[in-house]
Amino acid sequence: MAEVDAKILALQAKIKELKVAKKDASKEVEEMKALKAQQSKEKKEGSGFQLKVPKGTIDHKPAAALLRKKIFASLERIFSKHGGETIDTPVFELKEILAGKYGEDSKLIYDLQDQGGELCSLRYDLTVPFARYVAMNGLTNIKRYHIAKVYRRDQPVMSKGRMREFYQCDFDIAGTYDAMVPDAEILYILCEALDALEIGEYTIKLNHRKILDGIFELAGVPAEKTRMISSAVDKLDKLPWADVKKEMTAEKGLDEAVADRIGQYVGLKGKGREVLNKLQADEALNGVKSAKEGLADMAILFDYLDCFGVTDKMSFDMSLARGLDYYTGIIYEAVTELSAPPVVDDAPAVQDKKEKKGKKADKTVNEDGVDESAVGVGSIAAGGRYDNLVNMFAEAAGSKREKVPCVGVSIGVERVYAILEARRRAQEAKPRSKETDVYIMALGGGLLPERMKFAKKLWDAGIKAEFMYKAKPKAPAQWSQADADQVRFVAILAPNELANGIVRIKEQGVERAAGTDNGEEVSMDKVVEYLRERL
Amino acid sequence: MAEVDAKILALQAKIKELKVAKKDASKEVEEMKALKAQQSKEKKEGSGFQLKVPKGTIDHKPAAALLRKKIFASLERIFSKHGGETIDTPVFELKEILAGKYGEDSKLIYDLQDQGGELCSLRYDLTVPFARYVAMNGLTNIKRYHIAKVYRRDQPVMSKGRMREFYQCDFDIAGTYDAMVPDAEILYILCEALDALEIGEYTIKLNHRKILDGIFELAGVPAEKTRMISSAVDKLDKLPWADVKKEMTAEKGLDEAVADRIGQYVGLKGKGREVLNKLQADEALNGVKSAKEGLADMAILFDYLDCFGVTDKMSFDMSLARGLDYYTGIIYEAVTELSAPPVVDDAPAVQDKKEKKGKKADKTVNEDGVDESAVGVGSIAAGGRYDNLVNMFAEAAGSKREKVPCVGVSIGVERVYAILEARRRAQEAKPRSKETDVYIMALGGGLLPERMKFAKKLWDAGIKAEFMYKAKPKAPAQWSQADADQVRFVAILAPNELANGIVRIKEQGVERAAGTDNGEEVSMDKVVEYLRERL
Repeated sequence: MAEVDAKILALQAKIKELKVAKKDASKEVEEMKALKAQQSKEKKEGSGFQLKVPKGTIDHKPAAALLRKKIFASLERIFSKHGGETIDTPVFELKEILAGKYGEDSKLIYDLQDQGGELCSLRYDLTVPFARYVAMNGLTNIKRYHIAKVYRRDQPVMSKGRMREFYQCDFDIAGTYDAMVPDAEILYILCEALDALEIGEYTIKLNHRKILDGIFELAGVPAEKTRMISSAVDKLDKLPWADVKKEMTAEKGLDEAVADRIGQYVGLKGKGREVLNKLQADEALNGVKSAKEGLADMAILFDYLDCFGVTDKMSFDMSLARGLDYYTGIIYEAVTELSAPPVVDDAPAVQDKKEKKGKKADKTVNEDGVDESAVGVGSIAAGGRYDNLVNMFAEAAGSKREKVPCVGVSIGVERVYAILEARRRAQEAKPRSKETDVYIMALGGGLLPERMKFAKKLWDAGIKAEFMYKAKPKAPAQWSQADADQVRFVAILAPNELANGIVRIKEQGVERAAGTDNGEEVSMDKVVEYLRERL
Repeated sequence: MAEVDAKILALQAKIKELKVAKKDASKEVEEMKALKAQQSKEKKEGSGFQLKVPKGTIDHKPAAALLRKKIFASLERIFSKHGGETIDTPVFELKEILAGKYGEDSKLIYDLQDQGGELCSLRYDLTVPFARYVAMNGLTNIKRYHIAKVYRRDQPVMSKGRMREFYQCDFDIAGTYDAMVPDAEILYILCEALDALEIGEYTIKLNHRKILDGIFELAGVPAEKTRMISSAVDKLDKLPWADVKKEMTAEKGLDEAVADRIGQYVGLKGKGREVLNKLQADEALNGVKSAKEGLADMAILFDYLDCFGVTDKMSFDMSLARGLDYYTGIIYEAVTELSAPPVVDDAPAVQDKKEKKGKKADKTVNEDGVDESAVGVGSIAAGGRYDNLVNMFAEAAGSKREKVPCVGVSIGVERVYAILEARRRAQEAKPRSKETDVYIMALGGGLLPERMKFAKKLWDAGIKAEFMYKAKPKAPAQWSQADADQVRFVAILAPNELANGIVRIKEQGVERAAGTDNGEEVSMDKVVEYLRERL
């Protein structure tokens, strides 16, 4: 600070000098103004040092971190039940690995500074590192899950939960198998996951890229416009047909008759096999090779979904198109009826991309992840089959290999978190951030060594226990700590009872008849057993 | 590629033209040479694209990732048993938060590229983000654990396991409490952790900064040389006293008599209270205020360690000094007898700093973490009390607050991993990378729908099960998959048995009498129960 003061003084002297000499002092005046602005900014910020996290990131505080840990553990349990393996890739990749994978969203990639050596970027999603891993290790098959943070230098919208650092959770099955078998299992895993997370009612919208392509071909869409029209179709969950048709014709230059023929199909949707039966009876559509192939896939898929007992969760929805170009087979998106209010003050992080789409007509949702829109019915997971991505890497690196087809799902864990957090807030006043089951307190004499020995007894039995780090803690302080941490049991040590080998155990928050609220007297020999039975 | 070819052709034409006109073509020749060099380099690398991870990082493959997950889960269980909460901070911090915290090691910090907005750096350890978190949220107390990756742009030595991305695992207790109570619990937690991880025999070396300072004062070390001499003392686990003394006198300019007085003390070490009793009887030392305070702390600490029953794990070792300047009270380091061989091909990552220290005399180990030397007896965890670090942040940000004293431990999880991985390799041929318990196969007819329904039955009962994604898989292919994945049980579906509601369950890898190796016939109604009992 003193240095800046000195500089300003020097400049003032110089300016005075120049003005006296009737010379141009404008450069010096500008410089002084800049210094003063900097100084006042620094003063406002307190010695130029701000205690904050970078824009678009947050600290997950203990209660939020604990809830996230539970969500992740629940998902990992399901993935490993299906033979899933996890891999842990570096948080940054070589810049060239990410280059050319994300279209216009490439500008959102975080680069590391060139400090000599290789140029690296923070990972943008978990799909590209997965494809790189499979190609690099020459794998022909793997079932892998990966729950980790990804990075996007997007304009953060904290209120909508759009963050620059957020978690993704992907499960993918790579390998050459019989049609629709892994696809059906992925859909079953998705149902298991959404059931286990208890996020409420959900539907899984299903479609097939080859059927969509067949419809476009049948309707007469020129091949080069297919992806563009596909991304217009994908907006039907947000916009009425009239608007989408207008986009197709006025903006994308499609003939009105062609658009109308598309319109006859993309409005179709329904639970179970209803739509499939209708399309299978459509002779014109079955005359198009890709549509016929897609319909054959869907028929097999429904048979398998019947085996897994989840057909009723599915809605065959011809308007589902998914933004990403790399899908080659079935595509799906799970939507929940529950719309999570944004969580602003602690740990938001619903990644919202659709919002942008509405504003910018030709913007596709360029992520394998999830369109976790905060408005209306929420998308909570999405995915599909992508049979060519791994080979893009192998080929780009100059090695010709057999195809490694993949099918995968990305579960919107940030949105799951937001839903569960909102429900928690509606239900209870204060979340628990630690899991302590027993608070050990002394009434009379401090009894620190006795509390320590008792704590060790519980710890060694696997029981979560704490005590106050004071030699002679006051009773009210101990009670209020146990209350603040919402610890279920209080173990009360008192000199007389201890002499008789007795500890009193009181269950907190339980209404009891008068005279019995001092807890139960339990013998020291039996206390571990007593607590274990109740925990 | 075609673009470069075209450019080269155009340049060749231009050069010819210039030469014909007898003009200077040297610029064009240089340009063409550069293009050709680029082209040949790209050809060599296969379209200029290398499938690799950045230098100093690795992919943790499934078996390695699974072992790590188990290590982390084991530690988290212990931390949460003691009321520990976890926080999850961003992987990058504002650059200014890290600035000035790591001395000359600051050059190892990874910076993000300036793409507009704030300047950020990848975290270098978990201690500075923790202190920032405590200061920023105005916390007065917290017990927190954090297991996460940190980043150091060090010269990687893969064979020694020195990586640029590696895990740290920290547990810290912040708050103003009675002397040595949290300190004793941290040491107990460390014992619990090392026991649970089964890394073999270990000793926890203990010392106290105030006692060390007292010794230096008594010996006559000038105040300004205290830290320098302290870091020389810290080398006594690697170098003989004669070498350390030489460093003190010849390099650091200490009087020989002063060094000799230090030498009388720093050789002292011993299990339990032995050294404490000796020092308490030392009247001269007790005449120095800081030494007297430190000895009082140690006496209390040993009382508490007795309560926790871990006194026999401790060695009061006057030569332990720890490099970090910010320690203010007790310091400790756990060492194991087991020296882990480096794991080169898969997931190494023992962070080695001491190696450097040997070469460069005045290099301090500038990390809260662990000196995980790969030579000799290994340091596997370390920590101490640091009462001023949180306030450095609060003060730097211009807010005066009460002190938030801290005590913490960092467990060298990368070294733990290396030890456990080396043991695993010595014991078994192939690690498991997935946890599948039952492999469902069909003998005769494919039976895909039946396998699917049976898999669903097991999944819904929480049993980990897989089957082959083929409509009509061959028997040998199914057996070899079950073997390759080391799945314990095989469930065999066959048309006749299925018709009678029977499935055969065979336990793999179990030697059986001839004639009984076809497994047991189990009724479909009882099979979940049957498997649950055995798993």
